Amino acid sequence: MLEDKNQERTALEQLGEFGLIDHLTQHISLTQKSTVRGIGDDAAVLDFNNKKTIVTTDLLIEGVHFDLSYMPLKHLGYKAVMANLSDVYAMNATATQITVGLAVSNRFPLEALEELYAGIGLACKVFNVDLIGGDTTSSTTGMLISITALGEADEANIVYRDGAKPNDLLVVSGDVGGAYMGLQVLEREKAVFKVNPNTQPDLSPYSYIVERQLKPEARKDIVELLKKLEVKPTAMIDISDGLSSEILHLCKSSKVGCNLFEDKIPLDPTVISACEEFKIDSTLVALSGGEDYELLFTVAQDDFEKIKGNPNMTVIGHMTEESEGAHLVTRGNAKIPLTAQGWNSFEKE
Amino acid sequence: MLEDKNQERTALEQLGEFGLIDHLTQHISLTQKSTVRGIGDDAAVLDFNNKKTIVTTDLLIEGVHFDLSYMPLKHLGYKAVMANLSDVYAMNATATQITVGLAVSNRFPLEALEELYAGIGLACKVFNVDLIGGDTTSSTTGMLISITALGEADEANIVYRDGAKPNDLLVVSGDVGGAYMGLQVLEREKAVFKVNPNTQPDLSPYSYIVERQLKPEARKDIVELLKKLEVKPTAMIDISDGLSSEILHLCKSSKVGCNLFEDKIPLDPTVISACEEFKIDSTLVALSGGEDYELLFTVAQDDFEKIKGNPNMTVIGHMTEESEGAHLVTRGNAKIPLTAQGWNSFEKE
Repeated sequence: MLEDKNQERTALEQLGEFGLIDHLTQHISLTQKSTVRGIGDDAAVLDFNNKKTIVTTDLLIEGVHFDLSYMPLKHLGYKAVMANLSDVYAMNATATQITVGLAVSNRFPLEALEELYAGIGLACKVFNVDLIGGDTTSSTTGMLISITALGEADEANIVYRDGAKPNDLLVVSGDVGGAYMGLQVLEREKAVFKVNPNTQPDLSPYSYIVERQLKPEARKDIVELLKKLEVKPTAMIDISDGLSSEILHLCKSSKVGCNLFEDKIPLDPTVISACEEFKIDSTLVALSGGEDYELLFTVAQDDFEKIKGNPNMTVIGHMTEESEGAHLVTRGNAKIPLTAQGWNSFEKE
Repeated sequence: MLEDKNQERTALEQLGEFGLIDHLTQHISLTQKSTVRGIGDDAAVLDFNNKKTIVTTDLLIEGVHFDLSYMPLKHLGYKAVMANLSDVYAMNATATQITVGLAVSNRFPLEALEELYAGIGLACKVFNVDLIGGDTTSSTTGMLISITALGEADEANIVYRDGAKPNDLLVVSGDVGGAYMGLQVLEREKAVFKVNPNTQPDLSPYSYIVERQLKPEARKDIVELLKKLEVKPTAMIDISDGLSSEILHLCKSSKVGCNLFEDKIPLDPTVISACEEFKIDSTLVALSGGEDYELLFTVAQDDFEKIKGNPNMTVIGHMTEESEGAHLVTRGNAKIPLTAQGWNSFEKE
């Protein structure tokens, strides 16, 4: 439905691997002080001086993590970078470099990879990171993207998952559930398109959630904001798998429990109306729908005054002793154990 | 032919992604001083103090880079790490950490991934590197491994590809062509096995070249030896694609030409006899067969005395002015232009 049938096509075989890499990376510029040498040797060389180095890797696989029938390649490149930078920001660190591993079958022409690299390049530019290396190879089936992101931080500023204490406040940036509902809308339009390829979908009522799915933004701004507010979270994680699963990660690593309040979970009005339309519970979407790339963190109670009323973050609960477990406190004041799949509705207390 | 039909099988679905990661990484220990935090957070944290950081990424894809019908999974894990460490050593650096991205379809049971990780773990132990993170996900088809390796070096010791000068000597470690001929033997046995599954192949005459294919060793020892000999190469690259292609990389990056002498190329006797058996020219195999993971480097003429007669390295040619081009000087003293595919036999001078 988003495909342009009249695009130019240059077969990848015409370029060869090294020609392809040269072509795709010709507009890559290096801006990070810590990048000594980028693409073009056996490895890149970085200089982090006295800062600590942060490293994270993610794989994105066609048919598992993305569907090219509604994900434009430029957006895919952008989103793949976001998923990685988000992990660096979740350490309260600055992202500085990425490497990109790319496997593609020869059904993709050069122009498709140019689009993908345009998205990768845009993400690098907007978030001020250098593309310093990678590997490009053929695949027997679909497309696969593997990104490793590096970052830097002063040791004193790094935030791990294991520092949350009982009574710390649980805070989330932005709002959640949007990326998942955007996916529902896109999946529905794909099904409609299959039946009648002449329909032109009107996605304008869903533009917020579709954008959350197709062009998420990693929350570099939240890391900067916390620094400005002089708040160092006690623990932090990014929301890639859904609020519930991430809360359980924080609880497990920090050896604490948690009370999450259903009525505090920040939802965009578009998410609420889409949930009504699709007849899905909006709390379940918030807890289990992933890919929001918001930051979830805990702060000491003493820091509450500094973050109170800030439109970029919402206090959604507090940590407890580990023995108390992790629970959702519903609007009806019932306590339901959180599970990685959202909550376990069979096990009410 | 190497498959054990009676193995235990535990389905991956039984563990879930996080259970799987916990299980596979439970025996991982961290030994590098520069590893501050490994697996288990959004990202790993490293501390390289005043050294430079080296980063390289490689993708290995089933059906493109490996064939599981004759590549045991433990060897695959080991080899995947070698391919990456080799790039770090080619910078004259010390490898310190790796991250592993793994995509597998559910046709692989847990025990298969344990084998793979056993190979990865062994490589880490032997080469003294820490496994610090990664991503594990499902794939729609085969297996894919993406490894990023990090290393460290003092700035003054790093060797790039672009430092070779005219009259520098061209040197290769070990011998070449073995991995390619090992692959030919394994491919032939696979074809025999398809016709008659009861045959038991006798690979003993080919043990050296089969091992070169299935269990290559990155040349950390050469980096250490060069240091001991007080030789800093002017340029260096590892041999993953074949001697010819790597020489052309050095020439292009360093803006020099090269004369490679056919009679100097180090070949193991097993490679020569296998070439005779398979009726393939051994020089073509040396030039175009890849995956030897030897180091190819250039040294100033002044350093010749230090490396002369060393059994671990062979002088195979010398660099020239760029305008002279890159050539193979044959045993018959003909000069043939080198191409990325070996040599261009249609273009004799």
